[in-house]
Amino acid sequence: MAKTAPISPFAPMTLASLPPIDGVRFATAAAGIRYKGRTDLMVATLAPGTTAAGVLTQSKTCSAPVLWCREALRTGTARMLVVNSGNANAFTGLRGRQAVETTVAAAAAAASCTQREVYVASTGVIGEPMDAGKFAHLLTGLARDTKPDGFEAAARAIMTTDTYPKLATRKVAIDGTEVTLNGIAKGAGMIAPDMATMLAFLFTDASIASPVLQRLIARHTQTTFNCMTVDGDTSTSDTCLLFATGAAVRRGQTPIVDMADPRLAAFDAALEDLMKDLAIQIAKDGEGLSKFVTFEVAGAENWAAARRIALACANSPILKTAIAGEDPNWGRVVMAVGKSGEAADRDRLSIWFGDHLVARNGERAAGYEETTGAAYMKNAEIVIRLDVGVGSGRATVWTCDLTHAYVSINADYRS
Amino acid sequence: MAKTAPISPFAPMTLASLPPIDGVRFATAAAGIRYKGRTDLMVATLAPGTTAAGVLTQSKTCSAPVLWCREALRTGTARMLVVNSGNANAFTGLRGRQAVETTVAAAAAAASCTQREVYVASTGVIGEPMDAGKFAHLLTGLARDTKPDGFEAAARAIMTTDTYPKLATRKVAIDGTEVTLNGIAKGAGMIAPDMATMLAFLFTDASIASPVLQRLIARHTQTTFNCMTVDGDTSTSDTCLLFATGAAVRRGQTPIVDMADPRLAAFDAALEDLMKDLAIQIAKDGEGLSKFVTFEVAGAENWAAARRIALACANSPILKTAIAGEDPNWGRVVMAVGKSGEAADRDRLSIWFGDHLVARNGERAAGYEETTGAAYMKNAEIVIRLDVGVGSGRATVWTCDLTHAYVSINADYRS
Repeated sequence: MAKTAPISPFAPMTLASLPPIDGVRFATAAAGIRYKGRTDLMVATLAPGTTAAGVLTQSKTCSAPVLWCREALRTGTARMLVVNSGNANAFTGLRGRQAVETTVAAAAAAASCTQREVYVASTGVIGEPMDAGKFAHLLTGLARDTKPDGFEAAARAIMTTDTYPKLATRKVAIDGTEVTLNGIAKGAGMIAPDMATMLAFLFTDASIASPVLQRLIARHTQTTFNCMTVDGDTSTSDTCLLFATGAAVRRGQTPIVDMADPRLAAFDAALEDLMKDLAIQIAKDGEGLSKFVTFEVAGAENWAAARRIALACANSPILKTAIAGEDPNWGRVVMAVGKSGEAADRDRLSIWFGDHLVARNGERAAGYEETTGAAYMKNAEIVIRLDVGVGSGRATVWTCDLTHAYVSINADYRS
Repeated sequence: MAKTAPISPFAPMTLASLPPIDGVRFATAAAGIRYKGRTDLMVATLAPGTTAAGVLTQSKTCSAPVLWCREALRTGTARMLVVNSGNANAFTGLRGRQAVETTVAAAAAAASCTQREVYVASTGVIGEPMDAGKFAHLLTGLARDTKPDGFEAAARAIMTTDTYPKLATRKVAIDGTEVTLNGIAKGAGMIAPDMATMLAFLFTDASIASPVLQRLIARHTQTTFNCMTVDGDTSTSDTCLLFATGAAVRRGQTPIVDMADPRLAAFDAALEDLMKDLAIQIAKDGEGLSKFVTFEVAGAENWAAARRIALACANSPILKTAIAGEDPNWGRVVMAVGKSGEAADRDRLSIWFGDHLVARNGERAAGYEETTGAAYMKNAEIVIRLDVGVGSGRATVWTCDLTHAYVSINADYRS
């Protein structure tokens, strides 16, 4: 439990205020699944006709809810989302599947829809049997009592070790009709590709066909959630779902059914921007962090190589602890580049800490003073840029440092 | 610097006592490369006719000494080894190469050998220019003053954040002639494949041709040093060298020149055992550790898959911190198996903590009590066994927990 963890120094002063989205309604409850004195159950009802798309964990030991969502996504439609925190319902065997079935059956009855229009996600402890009986009976009442302006409460109900709820919103025009994109997310530890270890639920009133949504979310996951890491660990429960109610049709939008539709461009850009916003919010709530760190890699063979180099840096315990210690230890950046296995020219490698050129052409830059690097490392937000000197591939990865507080949080999580 | 790090709880009560090896002599010096009040330079002279083999880091940003050793190993012969601690001479560009050239030239003159019979290794800070002038002038005197019984002093001179020297010895018979195998190693952080991040120098008086030595060391590195990890980081300087003086020929051994020679079996087994001993000693000195942890994976597709699964466990920050917290958090083992990317049957996965069956067939084992696991986790040495249920591949990986002390050591290393 997060009870002893201090609030992230990057917690926003004020949370984003998310407007209602026509066709999406929320309710939350304190079902007592694990936590006391807080909400741990969130339901969203979705208007008839809502399309759905999603990206799920690549874990070979994925949770029962993930397996369910993989099936449900084949329908491309959605009417209800049920998310609980406190228990991941992962590695719970037959009982795990039964818990999902119980939940889905109750949800489908509550929302008067088919079971495959119900999406479920669970986050929390792995390996503890989950008793769906603790909350399945609540779903009918919750579905009845949903309200349109519940994004913040929903984001709070899905938190585990998060120290603040993650919220983001964007507006764009399609056919001159303004549509809204809202997203909520959770995740603080056990965060890494693929996909980034977290839950994210994205909602829009735009009318966009499911196959198009799927292409968009899959592509943007690569450059947003999959470019964010806290500790290099991959959860069993990663779920990112995107729901489009289509309500904007009533205000003049004609449906988008084709990836080649030029009207998609603004929505596409806004979706990526929203996902990036949420990804950065998650990295900024990395367990126990004291610094938010961005690795920008250029000069790699291609994007994938650049991303792997950036992730090798972002997942290096010895580099992350140096950053926590405000040590401009660029030698550990060199180490991480070397271990990535990607092509890099040792003798053309350049490294910047912020705007300060630290290393160039394979050795310490002329004129670089350790005091300059040390002063830069006192910043709360650190940008480390690399050029590995072999091509034009670029990628950016967001992460945080590795601190004593991370150890404390994860040594005591179940205590 | 290691000055603030407490001694590993696994430091041996008494160090292994290594007998002299005919044809190997050592000297050490306090050259003041970085550390004060301790030795930081080690030289070994090797008798004429000494054969050599080695395995070097796979890092793409490997150090200047590693590049030199790669060339020198082509000769298959060795007369002198020069190792310094305090500076890794890595990412030091042209000056790094010049420092190696200066060292090698001075060493070759001191040992009256060719430059390519000189092997060099440097360990310590990355990216700082190394001034070989601090010690090149000492080599002639050191080569003259070498003594046969200097293994422990040599092991101490190459330490960085190590809290104890790593020493191991074995004796086996070839042709009825007893031969000795001695090894020294260093390494505590930035430890992982490929190859395990460390220096190891192995010596024998056996007469074995260089190509045979190379096959042996390469094979055994896979199952020993490459099955040991502290933090998943790969150094720029990994070097494992094996030298065979051939002095045993004077006591009746006829040279071994063929991998198929049946007389090789005992030496082969002893070499692997010695390397495993040193690998475990390194893991037991993992930076800041409180527990020594062994992951034994069975039921994988093959050895490589089993090793990758074991390494995914051994490199998981969130699992390693749970172990530090004495939390029997087997859900994080499930997570690590899932993230390894290797085939595993979630519904046939079994996990044991020590002899306690914790999970079976994809869920918590009937009869497993959390109190049992919690009591087991209080042990200093933890064995976690997994069967992933898809094949007969097995592997063992040695590691340690991730503690507050690791963070302290690595946040302050250069301070």
